[in-house]
Amino acid sequence: MPSRRTLIHNGIVVPCDGTRTALDPGSVLIEDGRILAVDRPEALAHITDAHVVDATGHAVLPGLHNTHLHSGLLRGTAESKSLWDWLRDYVDPAHRALTPEIAEAASRLCYTESLRAGTTSVMDMWRHMEGSAHAAEQVGIRATLVPYVADLPGYDYFETLETNRRLLTHYRTHAGGRVRSWVGLEHLFYCSEEAFRAAAALAEEFDTGLHTHSSETMWEVEESVRRFGRRPIEEFRHRGVLGPRTVVAHCVWLDDHELDLLADTGTSVAHCPCSNMKLSSGPARVAEMRRRGIPVGLGSDGEKENNNLDLLEEMKFASLLQKVTTLDPTTGDPWDILTMATIDGARALGLDGVTGSLEAGKQADVVTVDLRRLHTTPLLHGEDFNAVAHLVFSASSADVNHVWVGGRLLVEGGRVRSVDPEKVRLEAQSAAEDLFRRRAALAG
Amino acid sequence: MPSRRTLIHNGIVVPCDGTRTALDPGSVLIEDGRILAVDRPEALAHITDAHVVDATGHAVLPGLHNTHLHSGLLRGTAESKSLWDWLRDYVDPAHRALTPEIAEAASRLCYTESLRAGTTSVMDMWRHMEGSAHAAEQVGIRATLVPYVADLPGYDYFETLETNRRLLTHYRTHAGGRVRSWVGLEHLFYCSEEAFRAAAALAEEFDTGLHTHSSETMWEVEESVRRFGRRPIEEFRHRGVLGPRTVVAHCVWLDDHELDLLADTGTSVAHCPCSNMKLSSGPARVAEMRRRGIPVGLGSDGEKENNNLDLLEEMKFASLLQKVTTLDPTTGDPWDILTMATIDGARALGLDGVTGSLEAGKQADVVTVDLRRLHTTPLLHGEDFNAVAHLVFSASSADVNHVWVGGRLLVEGGRVRSVDPEKVRLEAQSAAEDLFRRRAALAG
Repeated sequence: MPSRRTLIHNGIVVPCDGTRTALDPGSVLIEDGRILAVDRPEALAHITDAHVVDATGHAVLPGLHNTHLHSGLLRGTAESKSLWDWLRDYVDPAHRALTPEIAEAASRLCYTESLRAGTTSVMDMWRHMEGSAHAAEQVGIRATLVPYVADLPGYDYFETLETNRRLLTHYRTHAGGRVRSWVGLEHLFYCSEEAFRAAAALAEEFDTGLHTHSSETMWEVEESVRRFGRRPIEEFRHRGVLGPRTVVAHCVWLDDHELDLLADTGTSVAHCPCSNMKLSSGPARVAEMRRRGIPVGLGSDGEKENNNLDLLEEMKFASLLQKVTTLDPTTGDPWDILTMATIDGARALGLDGVTGSLEAGKQADVVTVDLRRLHTTPLLHGEDFNAVAHLVFSASSADVNHVWVGGRLLVEGGRVRSVDPEKVRLEAQSAAEDLFRRRAALAG
Repeated sequence: MPSRRTLIHNGIVVPCDGTRTALDPGSVLIEDGRILAVDRPEALAHITDAHVVDATGHAVLPGLHNTHLHSGLLRGTAESKSLWDWLRDYVDPAHRALTPEIAEAASRLCYTESLRAGTTSVMDMWRHMEGSAHAAEQVGIRATLVPYVADLPGYDYFETLETNRRLLTHYRTHAGGRVRSWVGLEHLFYCSEEAFRAAAALAEEFDTGLHTHSSETMWEVEESVRRFGRRPIEEFRHRGVLGPRTVVAHCVWLDDHELDLLADTGTSVAHCPCSNMKLSSGPARVAEMRRRGIPVGLGSDGEKENNNLDLLEEMKFASLLQKVTTLDPTTGDPWDILTMATIDGARALGLDGVTGSLEAGKQADVVTVDLRRLHTTPLLHGEDFNAVAHLVFSASSADVNHVWVGGRLLVEGGRVRSVDPEKVRLEAQSAAEDLFRRRAALAG
């Protein structure tokens, strides 16, 4: 019978508990899905009944949180377009062609890719999300499911508040709490004021969160002022959706007043540096958000805006985008960036009591990253400690070795165990081909 | 006896020959170290005496060119510093502590890491470069060796024009032309005007290239104007080093006149997006350089400024930095970026007659990248062709499968064959520890 305990032994433990400290060397003891202890190896030497995983030369960190993701299958098929043209010409027609089966295959691909890359928790805004719940359950990842809800004319192929309510009724919490549902809203220009107010009431009714995206491009801000007489975040406040339940993705073009509104209402931000760069949206004012105490998590955005779901890479982009935008090399510090990818992301998702750091009592969502690679050499300890810099600037998701979620070992030696990754890939390939055929047929 | 011919069969061949075309499917036939044919698989079906490598689902592209690299062992040890503080406090003291043995171990690490990542040609500015020549010969990579030459007081630990001449005498070309030496110059403020003029004469005498770095920070431009009454590239012209032999790294803060000077003199640029972002230097005006016909290659800069040597990742940064800086999504197009990493990089290095594209008669410097991964799914052909977008935006160096240089298979299935990578890593680790001890001892 397998031991109920696992000892991750002798690694470089980065607890991400709000302090800028590492236990090097350190060990993590897991029992019944939870973290029992985080300590120096010698302090856990008396543990003899645990399954021991040698983490020598590996960073041991909490699982990463992707706070803004769209499942999808459009990767690499429409590059070098501006955001709104690209939505109209490529993305929305694919939404029209989407079926529940294709949507589920997309989620299974994206969750498996994420898990392999050390991400143990995703917030996914997508459609037909009963299938996403099923995919998340199979893959074993934590997932916060957020349907794209829209109600304005021309967007009738999106989800509705009714389908969102149905999802909440069945999947408010699911799979022992690992899978949760929130209320979702598509772009400001896709939804009426009534939809916003009803969405806020729905989140209140189910005591759950609300997620949307805003202020990616300058055009969007100007258009909001033209239509509503208010900038987007001001309009959000007017429509009653700001508050501690709410996470807004992007938030690139915010003025000081809008930043203050987020801070004052306890609203969180999902920062998506790759997407903001790739779509030529602009650089978000992350340092100023963090200075105001706004919880800022990291997000990959979708496979089509990035084009991968690799939070280790996203951390490098997050840091370097701040550094080149502010021309201040003290911004984007690797410790701050790792905090965003872990405990601050968990905080945005309302999961910081459960996960996001390596602390006794929390769920055992743990990742090991092999730092004995050519591109992470030298690996230094003590005064010249460089493991956190390696995680943010040098490592890639291919260096992720083991991943546990709630104590279950889901990735072992870089290989996903919970599902067959090759089967997932082939299913997604076939679903994508189907989607493109359907889109072409609809275009006539 | 092994066949003299290798057939890389049925891949997605991206020749990078100046056209935006791929052969999908396509095959590459190698004979005696050179490319004999690039064609559709059926057109090469009559070849029966070749060793066949199945490249189904793989991109097949020319080896990548890293046009600005410093070998080194300081990775991750001094983050979030401004360029000039960081040079003074961390980098230059490490230069003082460097020995020929440590320098060679650094080159062996950096060349092995580069090769593993699909880079078949590096331009390395470093010191004690007889050891670098030896390392490049062992690893099997193409290397252009450029000593850091400085002559102003306080920089007496750098190389000199005399040691550069000695290197040229013995290693002007070496290892059958794979290893070459150029003339190098450290920063404008480390070298006298006489050193610049003598360096240009030395490059002329040996009929070889000249490499230096410039205009990274705004401070540097202001300081150049203050000291010399000219902006750096104007000062370079005054000192006689611009011209088709010369490659200048960075070139971030160039005004229109300086861009014109580069174009008019045929000078090339090594663009280093990660380094320019990470050191908070700024974004180079790459689109305007390319529009003027300036050859622009990609460079990783050193392990301490990046912090890896992964040109696939560098391509993503190059694209996204342009897109976010210009707010124009048509800039940084993946085809243009791949051109910079291959044939334009070769052109900057004066190697475009020899390598940089997959064309019959050229040296067989070939890389295969496995695109049958979760993060490169779906992989589409025909109208929705997305392999080039995958290479630039989704793939990582861990997806590099095979690497040939001059027809020699140096990386097979992701594993370096020419040297033992674990031995290289451990040697570099030990050399780095030695370097840090020596630096601490010198600091007293």
